[in-house]
Amino acid sequence: MSKVLVNVERGQLVESIHRGNIAVVNAKGEVLASLGEIEKVIYARSSMKPLQAIPIIETGAADHYRLDDGDISLACASHNGELQHTDRAAAILDRLGLGVEDLKCGTHPPRWQAAYENVVKEGKEITPIYNNCSGKHSGMLATAKHMNETVEDYYKIDHPVQQRILSVISELTDVPKENIEIGIDGCGVPVHGVPLQNLALSFARMADPSEFEETRRQSIRRVTSAMMNAPEMVGGTSRFCTDFMKVMNGKMFGKVGAEGVYCVGIPSAGIGIAVKIEDGNSRATSAVVMEVLSQMGLIEEEELRNLESYHYPVLLNARKEEIGMLRPAFSIYNKAIV
Amino acid sequence: MSKVLVNVERGQLVESIHRGNIAVVNAKGEVLASLGEIEKVIYARSSMKPLQAIPIIETGAADHYRLDDGDISLACASHNGELQHTDRAAAILDRLGLGVEDLKCGTHPPRWQAAYENVVKEGKEITPIYNNCSGKHSGMLATAKHMNETVEDYYKIDHPVQQRILSVISELTDVPKENIEIGIDGCGVPVHGVPLQNLALSFARMADPSEFEETRRQSIRRVTSAMMNAPEMVGGTSRFCTDFMKVMNGKMFGKVGAEGVYCVGIPSAGIGIAVKIEDGNSRATSAVVMEVLSQMGLIEEEELRNLESYHYPVLLNARKEEIGMLRPAFSIYNKAIV
Repeated sequence: MSKVLVNVERGQLVESIHRGNIAVVNAKGEVLASLGEIEKVIYARSSMKPLQAIPIIETGAADHYRLDDGDISLACASHNGELQHTDRAAAILDRLGLGVEDLKCGTHPPRWQAAYENVVKEGKEITPIYNNCSGKHSGMLATAKHMNETVEDYYKIDHPVQQRILSVISELTDVPKENIEIGIDGCGVPVHGVPLQNLALSFARMADPSEFEETRRQSIRRVTSAMMNAPEMVGGTSRFCTDFMKVMNGKMFGKVGAEGVYCVGIPSAGIGIAVKIEDGNSRATSAVVMEVLSQMGLIEEEELRNLESYHYPVLLNARKEEIGMLRPAFSIYNKAIV
Repeated sequence: MSKVLVNVERGQLVESIHRGNIAVVNAKGEVLASLGEIEKVIYARSSMKPLQAIPIIETGAADHYRLDDGDISLACASHNGELQHTDRAAAILDRLGLGVEDLKCGTHPPRWQAAYENVVKEGKEITPIYNNCSGKHSGMLATAKHMNETVEDYYKIDHPVQQRILSVISELTDVPKENIEIGIDGCGVPVHGVPLQNLALSFARMADPSEFEETRRQSIRRVTSAMMNAPEMVGGTSRFCTDFMKVMNGKMFGKVGAEGVYCVGIPSAGIGIAVKIEDGNSRATSAVVMEVLSQMGLIEEEELRNLESYHYPVLLNARKEEIGMLRPAFSIYNKAIV
């Protein structure tokens, strides 16, 4: 059974409650702390993007197309659709000799309101470049192009692009390929279902890849340092992923997934954290992540202060008055954190 | 403990779960069916708007300002901010000799994307008229103006406007005024916390007001028939409140409240239904309401078919592919429905 993780307070009442599950695992697969059902299979959604980026390095596509930290970070992103993101995605496609019409991620309005309003004001078409996954798709196209594979159907599960990704996910999560639940993600590519504990394990291994052979080690480190060196690409303005990695300044990487998923990797400790909010509401994830880090003594006081608005998110009404807040409401068992 | 009400399915997995509570009550206060914690105090949020509209009739403001069904319905609305809503709210204010600057509801972008894009394209300012509560606030101003009360502070709990509303809510919910939990709503006015069961009771009494004296009976009937006669005002294009009342064609009225609240009144049966999704996610409310009506035999096959997209909401991805759906996952105990 999932556990109460966050109370949504308004006035004197707890107005709503977010339940969920938490797994904290090291690179050996040992569960250091947990809450709720960590064996439950959940779709990792976009939290898998850092794993999905590994083949971009390992195929040689990243070197061939001169992808820098910002480009790799964008491939791991659920971005805001700000100019910094869309210009970069367009530049990657340009280097591949492809265009926005080759992105199969579909369209949605840019997440960042100012970006959305600019598109509307300028009467521009909302193309797939604004999709929060356009960086990931550009990365997938880079590997397909570099490997001389077809580019029209890179999003299908039997395409080599997706099969390479499936292998990486299987190797990092310790879940046999045939046991990984496949669904369709918000952007049309396969989405991967694994137990929460194994998702945490994959982030622990991303944080500490020392057990892998040299090529894998290097490719993992290139992905995670890209995210930490260019955190503005992973999300954007006022986004937890970005602000979290900016404040943590190279000490941790984090990635959101839709339907209330969040994962963190801590290289210095070799720890991976995976959170799933049962009801799928992403508003609760940052509060849970911050509280886990705080309770487990993994974060400094000053870092906590700088991320307070994500630890205790305030609810504002249309008059900009504070009318409530989200407050973590759990205690996580701490087995043995050094 | 709240109960599992809706599964969010994707591929072969239940990706997320919405828990919550349901109360089905008649006008005598008898619980006909229930699930979960119906004694739990919850903020009714905007589901209270039909009750909040009663003083507009009872003070004589509605007659004095010639408010028609559309106007009264708009006072009960959480509207889309479409032209049909904002023009009407502006017309009400005009009749009061007031303007948009007198609305104290604050601002948010119009909910309806096309309305939002039009505002941006035309370079208009986003004023409080677009706030989904601008009809309710216009109604509050109508009573204040008609009663020669101050209009600057109509939103404060000690203003006669809010005190009249508090009395109506106390009388319809059977909760003494001093026991009603007061918070601040998304639009700055007091929000009312009562047990879910009592919220359902108030909708049962709105559906069957025969126990009240004549003035109250007439004012309640004027509010509920306004909603059912002008359902497009209560929500707008592609909104459950509106489409539900259109299909039910005078047989039921329904009103959404933020944080996963929904209430229905059934005049012919004298029944009120109140639903609270524990996690506050409104995406699950229509599925729950439709399933309750279906399980309790309160709705015809054809009506169910016409509202199927609200009973089993489909999840589309950015490629417009169906990648999942919400499916009710509860069985409600049916004591004795005639």
